[in-house]
Amino acid sequence: MADPHPHPFAGDPVFDLHVGGKTAVVSTVPLTGRDDLSLAYTPGVARVCEAIAANPELTRYYTWVPNTVAIVTDGTAVLGLGDIGPAAAMPVMEGKAVLFKQFGGVDAIPICLDTTDVEEIIETVVRLAPSFGGVNLEDISAPRCFEIESRLKELLDIPVFHDDQHGTAVVALAALQNALKLTGRDPDGTRVVISGAGAAGVAVARILLEAGVRDLAVLDRQGVLNSQRHDLTPVKRALAVDTADQFDRRGSLADVMAGADVYIGVSGGTVAEDVVASMADEAIIFGLANPNPEVHPDLAHRYARVVATGRSDFPNQINNVLAFPGIFRGAFDVHATAITEGMKVAAADAIAGLVGDDLHEDYIVPSPFDDRVGPAVSTAVADAARRDGVAR
Amino acid sequence: MADPHPHPFAGDPVFDLHVGGKTAVVSTVPLTGRDDLSLAYTPGVARVCEAIAANPELTRYYTWVPNTVAIVTDGTAVLGLGDIGPAAAMPVMEGKAVLFKQFGGVDAIPICLDTTDVEEIIETVVRLAPSFGGVNLEDISAPRCFEIESRLKELLDIPVFHDDQHGTAVVALAALQNALKLTGRDPDGTRVVISGAGAAGVAVARILLEAGVRDLAVLDRQGVLNSQRHDLTPVKRALAVDTADQFDRRGSLADVMAGADVYIGVSGGTVAEDVVASMADEAIIFGLANPNPEVHPDLAHRYARVVATGRSDFPNQINNVLAFPGIFRGAFDVHATAITEGMKVAAADAIAGLVGDDLHEDYIVPSPFDDRVGPAVSTAVADAARRDGVAR
Repeated sequence: MADPHPHPFAGDPVFDLHVGGKTAVVSTVPLTGRDDLSLAYTPGVARVCEAIAANPELTRYYTWVPNTVAIVTDGTAVLGLGDIGPAAAMPVMEGKAVLFKQFGGVDAIPICLDTTDVEEIIETVVRLAPSFGGVNLEDISAPRCFEIESRLKELLDIPVFHDDQHGTAVVALAALQNALKLTGRDPDGTRVVISGAGAAGVAVARILLEAGVRDLAVLDRQGVLNSQRHDLTPVKRALAVDTADQFDRRGSLADVMAGADVYIGVSGGTVAEDVVASMADEAIIFGLANPNPEVHPDLAHRYARVVATGRSDFPNQINNVLAFPGIFRGAFDVHATAITEGMKVAAADAIAGLVGDDLHEDYIVPSPFDDRVGPAVSTAVADAARRDGVAR
Repeated sequence: MADPHPHPFAGDPVFDLHVGGKTAVVSTVPLTGRDDLSLAYTPGVARVCEAIAANPELTRYYTWVPNTVAIVTDGTAVLGLGDIGPAAAMPVMEGKAVLFKQFGGVDAIPICLDTTDVEEIIETVVRLAPSFGGVNLEDISAPRCFEIESRLKELLDIPVFHDDQHGTAVVALAALQNALKLTGRDPDGTRVVISGAGAAGVAVARILLEAGVRDLAVLDRQGVLNSQRHDLTPVKRALAVDTADQFDRRGSLADVMAGADVYIGVSGGTVAEDVVASMADEAIIFGLANPNPEVHPDLAHRYARVVATGRSDFPNQINNVLAFPGIFRGAFDVHATAITEGMKVAAADAIAGLVGDDLHEDYIVPSPFDDRVGPAVSTAVADAARRDGVAR
């Protein structure tokens, strides 16, 4: 029911749209009289409960659980806004729920938690698990997000997916595959620089390694992650061993950008023009910070052949919405117990593949509104789940 | 997406209806292109988040939270089935969500918890609280439900309501008010017997005391609750002092039924015919156990003037759905911080009042499908919230 008072930002299109929130729960069954009530509720429903009590696997047929994902956040890393808390995070989580439904047919419930403690978040999600078919972690700050995700994956037999990590990684990989194709490169011989070692940076690095990139330098604010440094978290140290250590890359962004083929920014901040200019010919630049890319497209285009951002108002938008709805759709369609590396790479391949013969500098990933995306990703992910033995 | 396999009970109307569950999450905003996306999601949504971070009260305008209730259960006391666990409880919770929407316009989310520990349930709900405008506790066994509810009411500034207690109590009070009117009794001089001292029995007793009944005996399996007994929980002991102790009622059901005006059964079990026959003239019998009333209506009618059950296939159905949707609707309409005793009694008065001049033995409460019920209850509850100082 509408609030009797006008809302404080009436007339502002963004706020006008948000009045009352963006999601609702609806019934999918008729309820027009006592007969309907006796089927959907008592006494009929008791038989469904008894059947599930006798065989919990029946949950998949007779509840909404297998199509439902909890979007779980603690509000500590919301968009580029940082730690704004659980209440202020809700509009993003509702937006995510809208996207889950529109692009994946998934019922998503925003769960904004009033705790930032790793153990409390983990135990809370474990207790909620019977209500959901999957867990999408969202906007939880690094490095806590890594432990929360890995522990929940161990503890639960439903898909657990941190979208800020893996959604970004999947779409970045898809875009990079097409950019490499366009510039005639192999992953194997390509020098990649990733600026940012938070949730997205670590996951992008990991999926690029999975996809065959070997010469990879990842930077945090102190410079290139390598084993000589003594200030690294366990996650960063492990990544250093697998990336910069392999080719003995070290130093600052300027040091590793000279001659690099690919720059992927997931850090915010700005790259100086002379540093951009020092990259290899036919360079590839993804500045994914929103709303201000690390390298503005106008500048990037002076030195690079392929340019992508996170913004919808430039070509080549690296947008997670290309990935997460189809990934959960595919996982849910086969009642997957997890989302494997193979399923993520399959999603990236499916996204990249849709570009096909239309591939050119300004079209390396499909539009989020390309209605082939969801079905292509979900089919590829479901197939990969079967291959990886996590379908049931 | 439909499961490729046929479901195991195909052809059974109850199971057929339950395929895929009974609830869904939908978007309430348009999302047909990049412009919509930039309002409902990034970059537009960031401004809404920032506004709420600066002033958390804005949650009431720009999120779905103030219209959303968590239906929280641990699956320990589901319908008459007992402790069937959280997974098997889900069909009931989805049904409840359907009723919340249909009869109250409330968005309700089933939360089935994988713990039965009182402290864990409390701390979990507290952590979830930023996501919800209210908490409806459901099918949690006594006496744990009493502590969980009272502690959550202290800890949270949103409505917390245990429907098995208070929903039942509100509708029972409404029905009793009309039954007393029909038989020319005052609450003050009426002898009431309540069989059952679980969640519903305790709450029915408490609301009847609130409504002016004084001669009240409440029984558990060991007989009448009174202070001579040494086996009572703190909740039962406190209730004994306020009920049977006042008129020194003691003994068995047969002892207190002789000459009693009203019997309210919320226990299951069966009352022997000679015991029913021993009641006062023009007796009132509510056998609320489902599906088998403590006194079958055919038997009850031999000795009583007014008979009610919990069943939809007899007249005078005492059904919680008359209460909880309108109670939450009214509480949400005024952003109430709690549901007070005054709001519950106001709900009962509103329900009873709708019967009006049509009052007769077979019509003491309106039908759940009487579309005056929700608005009447919500208006009365909102008014009571303002009177009780819990509107904001």
